[in-house]
Amino acid sequence: MTAPLRGVVPPVCTPLHPSGEVDTASLARLVEHLVAGGVHGLFALGSTSEVAYLTDEQRATVLEVVVNAADGRVPVLAGVIDTTTARVVEHAKAAAATGADAVVATAPFYTRTHPKEIARHFRRVRAAVDLPLFAYDLPVSVQSKLSAALVGELAEDGTLAGLKDSSGDEGGLRRLIVALGGRDGRFGGPAPDFSVLTGSELTVDAALLAGADGVVPGIGNVDPAAYVRLYDAARAGDWEVAAKEQERLVGLFGMVDAGPEEDMGRSSSALGAFKHALQLLGVIQHGDTAFPQIQLSAESVAVVSRHLRAAGLRPVR
Amino acid sequence: MTAPLRGVVPPVCTPLHPSGEVDTASLARLVEHLVAGGVHGLFALGSTSEVAYLTDEQRATVLEVVVNAADGRVPVLAGVIDTTTARVVEHAKAAAATGADAVVATAPFYTRTHPKEIARHFRRVRAAVDLPLFAYDLPVSVQSKLSAALVGELAEDGTLAGLKDSSGDEGGLRRLIVALGGRDGRFGGPAPDFSVLTGSELTVDAALLAGADGVVPGIGNVDPAAYVRLYDAARAGDWEVAAKEQERLVGLFGMVDAGPEEDMGRSSSALGAFKHALQLLGVIQHGDTAFPQIQLSAESVAVVSRHLRAAGLRPVR
Amino acid sequence: MTAPLRGVVPPVCTPLHPSGEVDTASLARLVEHLVAGGVHGLFALGSTSEVAYLTDEQRATVLEVVVNAADGRVPVLAGVIDTTTARVVEHAKAAAATGADAVVATAPFYTRTHPKEIARHFRRVRAAVDLPLFAYDLPVSVQSKLSAALVGELAEDGTLAGLKDSSGDEGGLRRLIVALGGRDGRFGGPAPDFSVLTGSELTVDAALLAGADGVVPGIGNVDPAAYVRLYDAARAGDWEVAAKEQERLVGLFGMVDAGPEEDMGRSSSALGAFKHALQLLGVIQHGDTAFPQIQLSAESVAVVSRHLRAAGLRPVR
Amino acid sequence: MTAPLRGVVPPVCTPLHPSGEVDTASLARLVEHLVAGGVHGLFALGSTSEVAYLTDEQRATVLEVVVNAADGRVPVLAGVIDTTTARVVEHAKAAAATGADAVVATAPFYTRTHPKEIARHFRRVRAAVDLPLFAYDLPVSVQSKLSAALVGELAEDGTLAGLKDSSGDEGGLRRLIVALGGRDGRFGGPAPDFSVLTGSELTVDAALLAGADGVVPGIGNVDPAAYVRLYDAARAGDWEVAAKEQERLVGLFGMVDAGPEEDMGRSSSALGAFKHALQLLGVIQHGDTAFPQIQLSAESVAVVSRHLRAAGLRPVR
Repeated sequence: MTAPLRGVVPPVCTPLHPSGEVDTASLARLVEHLVAGGVHGLFALGSTSEVAYLTDEQRATVLEVVVNAADGRVPVLAGVIDTTTARVVEHAKAAAATGADAVVATAPFYTRTHPKEIARHFRRVRAAVDLPLFAYDLPVSVQSKLSAALVGELAEDGTLAGLKDSSGDEGGLRRLIVALGGRDGRFGGPAPDFSVLTGSELTVDAALLAGADGVVPGIGNVDPAAYVRLYDAARAGDWEVAAKEQERLVGLFGMVDAGPEEDMGRSSSALGAFKHALQLLGVIQHGDTAFPQIQLSAESVAVVSRHLRAAGLRPVR
Repeated sequence: MTAPLRGVVPPVCTPLHPSGEVDTASLARLVEHLVAGGVHGLFALGSTSEVAYLTDEQRATVLEVVVNAADGRVPVLAGVIDTTTARVVEHAKAAAATGADAVVATAPFYTRTHPKEIARHFRRVRAAVDLPLFAYDLPVSVQSKLSAALVGELAEDGTLAGLKDSSGDEGGLRRLIVALGGRDGRFGGPAPDFSVLTGSELTVDAALLAGADGVVPGIGNVDPAAYVRLYDAARAGDWEVAAKEQERLVGLFGMVDAGPEEDMGRSSSALGAFKHALQLLGVIQHGDTAFPQIQLSAESVAVVSRHLRAAGLRPVR
Repeated sequence: MTAPLRGVVPPVCTPLHPSGEVDTASLARLVEHLVAGGVHGLFALGSTSEVAYLTDEQRATVLEVVVNAADGRVPVLAGVIDTTTARVVEHAKAAAATGADAVVATAPFYTRTHPKEIARHFRRVRAAVDLPLFAYDLPVSVQSKLSAALVGELAEDGTLAGLKDSSGDEGGLRRLIVALGGRDGRFGGPAPDFSVLTGSELTVDAALLAGADGVVPGIGNVDPAAYVRLYDAARAGDWEVAAKEQERLVGLFGMVDAGPEEDMGRSSSALGAFKHALQLLGVIQHGDTAFPQIQLSAESVAVVSRHLRAAGLRPVR
Repeated sequence: MTAPLRGVVPPVCTPLHPSGEVDTASLARLVEHLVAGGVHGLFALGSTSEVAYLTDEQRATVLEVVVNAADGRVPVLAGVIDTTTARVVEHAKAAAATGADAVVATAPFYTRTHPKEIARHFRRVRAAVDLPLFAYDLPVSVQSKLSAALVGELAEDGTLAGLKDSSGDEGGLRRLIVALGGRDGRFGGPAPDFSVLTGSELTVDAALLAGADGVVPGIGNVDPAAYVRLYDAARAGDWEVAAKEQERLVGLFGMVDAGPEEDMGRSSSALGAFKHALQLLGVIQHGDTAFPQIQLSAESVAVVSRHLRAAGLRPVR
């Protein structure tokens, strides 16, 4: 993998059979769909991949399929998501053995962990496998925010190859980028190979304008080419084009509210919408999300379909 | 006031004497400093104005000085910040009598209030005074987030003339702007006169790219001309220039951490930094913040001074 | 007022006319109802009194009526609830002038305030009026928790005469009581006159067993005599009797859910239930809560009525 | 296991070698220490057992040692802690195979899960193994609170054999107990075999007075006999004796603050204190907590030792 990683790196959805088993044929087709869309990398086993719902065996299956399907055309980042260090290290070793190009770890969760302990955690994970390590900042799941000071320290000493920032704290991200050298100076700055990827898929134009390297967009599963167009426009300095594309994607993203709030989790609604959109587009076979998530009703799937059409995408079913 | 309000609208700091009384002469000079910097409006009695620390009498003094000093050159928005409707209405009537051009109210706080109750609140405040009403979304203080649905409803029926969004939820703001018609369509859209102002002062280039009308930047007290340059560049489509100016302001903003975290509130440190910067620049006489806030030490003031110099501003003291 | 204050000290509801004005006749009757129930003090202008909804003029009216109606038979504590010190001091002076026996203040809210600043706040409020000062720990409204260390410090130096603990942190309260000398040793301990009052009205038997001095129960408005029976049983060491009475009150308290969650705030539902219960019992004239709260429907009032009957109380309307 | 489970059920600490491996000899001695103290059950692989830090292999080792050491004298509950259903089911099957008498599961975490989805989760876990299932309510780790309605529903239909409530919401627990039939009526009530265990180790007297069946006290590792005395006194109606014992345990519990807040997590400090106390008492060999937790300094261990002596326990080292 070339450092720093830049561009569009979607968190790959995990297609499932209604029985709950991984639909490997659909997963391989999804990888093809993403690579054909021009993406620059794939993030398997992230939150959007429903990693928290998958057994270790299922995780292994998913990563193997993604690595094989990608076939070296783009790098594959593997989420190694678990509560604390020893468990994360086991996932990281498994990911390395399966051929991942990098691993992505959160701070410990379920436990309450001090920043000094979080630093130890990332250092040990990095030491355990000979792969670039990305920190995954996701306070909504992990309940702690990685501070700019901590990320800066781990960037400078080479522990981290990058950050996937899904904190939603865009001001904090801006401060981090400036601390790392800023829009222009960063690559001559203290962490020249450090990659800043935003998970805030509704403000990617803004993140790129601020100096981020790339994006990990959940809805990029559905329309990868659009994020690639957005990214290319930004790199070319066509900010108005980038903003227009972003705006269109904001409209498409509205599908995440397809499931009624009183009946299902917000996350179940969003994941179900992404998967049903992929099913409607003919990419994957089923829109099912993992147990115990409630499934989208036919009415909700119709909402998803309307969002696709409104954005100019054509359902084939 | 022309609708919609657009541009740079700093939340005016309230200079105090060490005794705690409002320093009216300094406040008038600060207004001059801001108007000379090219700002498009003034927001008196907001959070950055330490409104929560001021008695009703002090609030009246502040608003009178700002209205008189502005002298019609730019519109003056007045914060009418209090726990619930009846108290807010009293502040709004006082603001109208003093000559404010618009009022800015939060949702109720201290109490836990349902969205339907929040809608009733804004409607009654609007009915009580013949002035445009801005909703102030500040979950860190108010503990509830105004939903896009609620803001949209109150925009369309004319209750609200605008939103000051200090929620930090940039993705949510983007969704709201798109719902209101988007970057281009908004002004022909459902709420053509509605003004979206961001309080996220570190990502103003991004907000303007997304279609926001303006910004309410706390550190705009210190360097109003920079935000005006940023705004002008954005309006001209010079996004690289806007981003560079924003980046410089992010560096300047670093002064908010001047006060050590173990000794004082984060808000006290930031407000003290802004005020001491203004004192160092010769605009106001004292850097004191209101009781019971802890004051910056000489060492912390030196940090503020270094931030000014690093950003090319010249302390005169 | 004898120190330490002990016993049942209900937070007095504020009866309103449908117009929103204070119903002084009903308020005087409510005071009579409480004193007749045997309570040991009255807490006017607390959260249950809807203090956050009342203008300063209404607050003055309420306190005057309560002080006059109490007529020295029991002490009157007055809430002095506002965002920060200068505003709280104004309320405290007004309360002293009206004849309150003590004042009750929260930490600053709306702002984010450091513990050292909170200590300064309480010290200045105490210095401003010659009345005992109670700290009101209510994180759900104030967004900060008073630490045991801070309360202990302010108890020992005489700033605080007591604590009204509505934090819901019963373990923390237990640790505080032990730190102050424990169940037996407390009154010879470091703060012999310090009064610990719990606002956790569903676990009063437990708090008294732990060594608390008394209770400030919202639903004590409805059935003051029951809390007095509970208190007397506890003081007599009849813990089974106390627990049985508490259990009956837990059932009665179920009325707080009368208003449907999708239609109104949880606080509006609870306050509406207390007031309608008082109306049904013939104590006050209207069950209205202050604007912008949504009013209970007839169906919800019927739920309140059923709770009264189930607890052996007899609605007269 | 007899239903309902009642009494003192400590969450068994997991002694570790400095290398991080499970110290099986110490673990067996700890079980002996607890059984000798008179406890009524053992909870292995809970939060206090550092379950989140243990690999699956280590979990298996721990459970095997505890089951063997308990040797049928008291029932062994096994924590099956993981992010979502499929992973939890795997742990539950492993626990059943190793001889656990019951399993203890939280709601899903890391993901955001709707109450309807949480109900599905518990039902599937229950269906997967032929063992009683306890719900573990621990919002500080899981980020959602189990509502009384949900627990009641799952108690009545037989999904749950009990609740381990570590929510700290004592008022909510009281409402649940009343809903289940109350102090006296519960066992003839809708869920006669349902066991309510509190994890609020500082207010056990209160919970028992309220009608709880038992307690899962972390510091019960250190002084199990004291919780047994407390429990026996409560069952005998000697509430003053129970309260005095609780007060002594509150003092002992102060050891959890041994580690300085600026250097380590609150959880690391508490777990380190429990383990070092056990080491000082000669029960286990090392006080080490699992990586990445910071270890207690010699100074902090001295604080632990002082707490032991103050409570009348005699360190042997």
